[in-house]
Amino acid sequence: MFQLGKQPTNNDKKIVDQLRSLGIDMIDTAKSGHPGIVLGAAPIIYTLYAKHLMINPKDPNWINRDRFVMSAGHGSALLYATLFLAGYKITLEDLKAFRSMDSITPGHPEYKTTPGVDMSTGPLGQGFASAVGMAIAEVYLKNQLKKKIIDYHTYVLCGDGDLMEGISYEAASLAGVLGLNHLIVLYDSNHVSLDAETNVTFTENIKDRFTAMGWNYINVSDGEDIEALNRAIDQAKAEENKPTLIEVNTIIGKYSKNQGTAKAHGTPLDEEDLKQVKEKLDIWDIPFTVSNDAVTEFQRQIEERVDAYYKNWQTKKENLDEESKEKLDLLEKGTYEIKLKDFSYDFPEDLMESTRDASGKVLNEIKNQCDFFLGGSADLATSNKSYLKESGDFSKDNPMGRNIRYGVREHAMGAISNGLALVGLRPFASTFLVFSDYLKPAIRMSALMNLPVLYIFTHDSISVGEDGPTHQPVEQLIALRSTPNLEVFRPADVNEVIGSYKTIFRKKEGPSAIILGRNKVPIQNETKASEVEKGAYIVRMEEGQLHGIIVATGEELSIAIDAATRLKEQGYSLRVISMPSIERFRKEPKEYQEELFPMTVKTFVIEASSSYSWHSFVYNERYLITVNNFGMSAKREDIMKRYHMDVESVIKKIKEML
Amino acid sequence: MFQLGKQPTNNDKKIVDQLRSLGIDMIDTAKSGHPGIVLGAAPIIYTLYAKHLMINPKDPNWINRDRFVMSAGHGSALLYATLFLAGYKITLEDLKAFRSMDSITPGHPEYKTTPGVDMSTGPLGQGFASAVGMAIAEVYLKNQLKKKIIDYHTYVLCGDGDLMEGISYEAASLAGVLGLNHLIVLYDSNHVSLDAETNVTFTENIKDRFTAMGWNYINVSDGEDIEALNRAIDQAKAEENKPTLIEVNTIIGKYSKNQGTAKAHGTPLDEEDLKQVKEKLDIWDIPFTVSNDAVTEFQRQIEERVDAYYKNWQTKKENLDEESKEKLDLLEKGTYEIKLKDFSYDFPEDLMESTRDASGKVLNEIKNQCDFFLGGSADLATSNKSYLKESGDFSKDNPMGRNIRYGVREHAMGAISNGLALVGLRPFASTFLVFSDYLKPAIRMSALMNLPVLYIFTHDSISVGEDGPTHQPVEQLIALRSTPNLEVFRPADVNEVIGSYKTIFRKKEGPSAIILGRNKVPIQNETKASEVEKGAYIVRMEEGQLHGIIVATGEELSIAIDAATRLKEQGYSLRVISMPSIERFRKEPKEYQEELFPMTVKTFVIEASSSYSWHSFVYNERYLITVNNFGMSAKREDIMKRYHMDVESVIKKIKEML
Repeated sequence: MFQLGKQPTNNDKKIVDQLRSLGIDMIDTAKSGHPGIVLGAAPIIYTLYAKHLMINPKDPNWINRDRFVMSAGHGSALLYATLFLAGYKITLEDLKAFRSMDSITPGHPEYKTTPGVDMSTGPLGQGFASAVGMAIAEVYLKNQLKKKIIDYHTYVLCGDGDLMEGISYEAASLAGVLGLNHLIVLYDSNHVSLDAETNVTFTENIKDRFTAMGWNYINVSDGEDIEALNRAIDQAKAEENKPTLIEVNTIIGKYSKNQGTAKAHGTPLDEEDLKQVKEKLDIWDIPFTVSNDAVTEFQRQIEERVDAYYKNWQTKKENLDEESKEKLDLLEKGTYEIKLKDFSYDFPEDLMESTRDASGKVLNEIKNQCDFFLGGSADLATSNKSYLKESGDFSKDNPMGRNIRYGVREHAMGAISNGLALVGLRPFASTFLVFSDYLKPAIRMSALMNLPVLYIFTHDSISVGEDGPTHQPVEQLIALRSTPNLEVFRPADVNEVIGSYKTIFRKKEGPSAIILGRNKVPIQNETKASEVEKGAYIVRMEEGQLHGIIVATGEELSIAIDAATRLKEQGYSLRVISMPSIERFRKEPKEYQEELFPMTVKTFVIEASSSYSWHSFVYNERYLITVNNFGMSAKREDIMKRYHMDVESVIKKIKEML
Repeated sequence: MFQLGKQPTNNDKKIVDQLRSLGIDMIDTAKSGHPGIVLGAAPIIYTLYAKHLMINPKDPNWINRDRFVMSAGHGSALLYATLFLAGYKITLEDLKAFRSMDSITPGHPEYKTTPGVDMSTGPLGQGFASAVGMAIAEVYLKNQLKKKIIDYHTYVLCGDGDLMEGISYEAASLAGVLGLNHLIVLYDSNHVSLDAETNVTFTENIKDRFTAMGWNYINVSDGEDIEALNRAIDQAKAEENKPTLIEVNTIIGKYSKNQGTAKAHGTPLDEEDLKQVKEKLDIWDIPFTVSNDAVTEFQRQIEERVDAYYKNWQTKKENLDEESKEKLDLLEKGTYEIKLKDFSYDFPEDLMESTRDASGKVLNEIKNQCDFFLGGSADLATSNKSYLKESGDFSKDNPMGRNIRYGVREHAMGAISNGLALVGLRPFASTFLVFSDYLKPAIRMSALMNLPVLYIFTHDSISVGEDGPTHQPVEQLIALRSTPNLEVFRPADVNEVIGSYKTIFRKKEGPSAIILGRNKVPIQNETKASEVEKGAYIVRMEEGQLHGIIVATGEELSIAIDAATRLKEQGYSLRVISMPSIERFRKEPKEYQEELFPMTVKTFVIEASSSYSWHSFVYNERYLITVNNFGMSAKREDIMKRYHMDVESVIKKIKEML
């Protein structure tokens, strides 16, 4: 059926149509999926893989590969068909198992599930924004390691939906500031989204908008024109100072009877439509028909382009200096732990220090111990105490800068951090805890991909004070704690801050959030850095008979200890447990958990945050000294009193119930 | 000290400086706040209030007032000083109590706390985006009510931070599509944000970006030039087809020794600086010095401009037709309940219907019963079943359209809904539950302001199926339930869907979220619409001795009922409780709660979502049949089995533990 013609463009067309037919067969077999992008954007992805991407399907994790992010994650069928044809370890059986249980071809691309998939996508805008992180990582690593051993391009395929999302705007704006010329976004511009045509929702002049943000803009007016696509990508690669957006005008669901309409987006073609599309494509109407010629020709193009470059890169790698080699090893390992050397601080015993200040010192130590540690704040570094001193700001002129000035762009910050981590760096992202809401969708992506991103959230409760309820988190802690794979730490003082960071950096995978306060609290004699990894430990043992247990975290630990001391004087013997991480504690052996919490002992919890985190630790919610309403604007001390979170109120409440 | 000069511009300058001095006095007294914007943007807010805003300080809730949104909420001191001077019910004592407990002058503007404050702001970008909602409401109401009885402008003061946030981009893009010419944004462009100058973060060409989005753009190059500001606002008001952005070049912290730098942003001036600023302003260095002349002249300008217009409006109101008058009454009340008349559906007893489908029918009934009910989806109306049939799409050409095509802009959708509600409408906003993360910061604003926004979230658990983990919510329900003031409903079938909506519309205040499934489930004989308002009720009574209780919500209720039926056959007598709303149930009298849950009876909970919602209902978390990991891409049935959420697994687990 398939014959290689004389004209290269003919071959191109045949392979593109092969991708189309495989894609719609997958969707038809799964009885769900998105044929619109498969039929519309096949020429784009084909041109990219056949003629540009520096990849090696036999070495899918090659550290210097060009990255490809399918930001329009619902185009998974098209991506899998392409990866299959390109020679990645994906079989025709895998394509047939599209969207079925335990297949390597799930409904949306999943990182680490499918070879060749550089990140999980699906929630729109995330891919675009994380690609900006990959592009930043490339610039940073190109300069961290010698000989341009890292020197790749990051490509994105995105749709109208991606560009409507605020996160992609934020990321694009920053990419423009940073002049990330190795970032090339292919915009599948089909003027249709799920519900309707974009003339009712999205009428921007994309060229002007991206040009205004410092981007290079290229238009390919006919999305079927492989030569034009090819030229556009060549032009983009030649651009030295700016990221490039290539707007490709395509027709959604091309060849389907619904082509060009919203109906073509997300419903499998009906039988008749499938048949007539196959006819137009000149491909047998037998599901999963594959042309050997198409496979051979596609893979030939990739090999011809990449082989020598790949071998040359291996040679370059062998001749790398020791330091660069070591760093490259780490990157190639992908996941690695960082054993932080001991920190020591000289501080007076009566030092009062906020945990954010303590964190600031520790971050600056970590920076000295790990070259892959970098990050930034959403315009709050000064308040988050998260600036890495003497490390400079990352910019085109200072590519070794390790402070990324994200601007007031929390959401993009989260997604960019994911991109940095996907390349092997250990990024941090910081803002106020209450604004963790702004980047939650990106945190979820960290968690889904199990990436070692460190989130630093300061200003952690109603104790923020005067800035008032819009700035005082209440429900954010439980939102983070309930996110699978994310470990949350809320340290009480400098000892626990150190312990939290040590625990976090020992982890090879998975995101962490550290929750810090802005108020000066005493350093506790009883807190221990080494105990944090267990999630909870006894900081004050009862003397004699145990009357009750007080659990506390963060700034509230000092209240718990004060209360226990005062209650002791009144004849009540209480045990105080610090629980910087519920998630860690839950992973401890049952025996340890029971040792800390003997059955039938009354347990009180003090945390200036939603009760929901703590119901499982108490028999009755009356034992929870927590905050379930919005805060208020006033001095910290006044607020704590009003919310019955001051020492006096705590003592009173515990005495009532003992 | 203050003397009215001959030149009006001199008077202007004097009043502007009066605002400045009051603002910095407030911050100095509170020992916290943001002097940068007070000193930099005073001429902007002055020009607006003195020469343009159609407001009546004696009738701050006047329904046809021009709206003013201080999107840069940290400029609260400037706003309060302006409102004081304009004659709102704010005393000098109130200004002195800035940021202190129970004052009406909190750290960031709070809706319903301070007369003249049209919305709570602080989290950047929210104000800008909600203003778009206010502007949409104006267009809608102008056409819903006769005689242009609603015919106001919406003004925004925003800063660099607002414009960097993705939410403001989303909202601006939509405002451009909709051609909201009564929306006028004043952009305090000072090139400085908290951490640094914007040349390292925000280098966009704002003119080109906004023009590309269909906005009218005007530049005022000298932010001290009242005449130029005045002319720019006049020009903006004359624009008939587009929203306007007026970029005003200002100097942050003007007159301070730190002027023009990030240091001027968020720290009170030191004593010496305060003193020299006062000198430059030519105002006595006695805190809270107020010039009578300034007050008189400011209020004279407002009265001269507004008085006749306001009186004329009252006359117009008296002569309004009955229907318009009724509607206006409702709007003027501000909060009102909507008693939905009975719905009745003919459906066969064995009907299988998804709750999203049931919801779609009910929404279309509500539409017929309430003209103020309107809303939209973030490009998922087709999947959310939230399209109001025969009501058309809202647009410039169809201002009575009640479907707002938000595009893929969840965050702006939430904030715009807040704006609609602030004017008195009853908006809904819909998307997939997993994407509620994208708009959580806006949901929080609904909750903080206690606005009756209805959030419709479909595709509510791992049962989404093939789309996989990026599309399957796990932690979203607890994130919503833990948000103060927000009531969450997860109905089990059409009966409970009806009951949920009835309960929601009877509420005068406060946001609600309804959580819906995409899978066909049986209509239960035992569910009752009328019971939903209690939050929980018995759907299946035990027979004889009570062995245990099963609580379930949403799609899982049918699993619970099936399991109870089958366990009954095996000799176990179980009570089944449906709990569509935990928050409602918690508000019920203790007796009712204890009637449903007798002490010492084993309680099991079935909900395909995070355990955290349910710990307080069980003695041991082993009794929770919930989901605490990310989902997967597969058929629904396969997933439910894998996660032990199918009937067989549930029966097995309960039997083991009884």
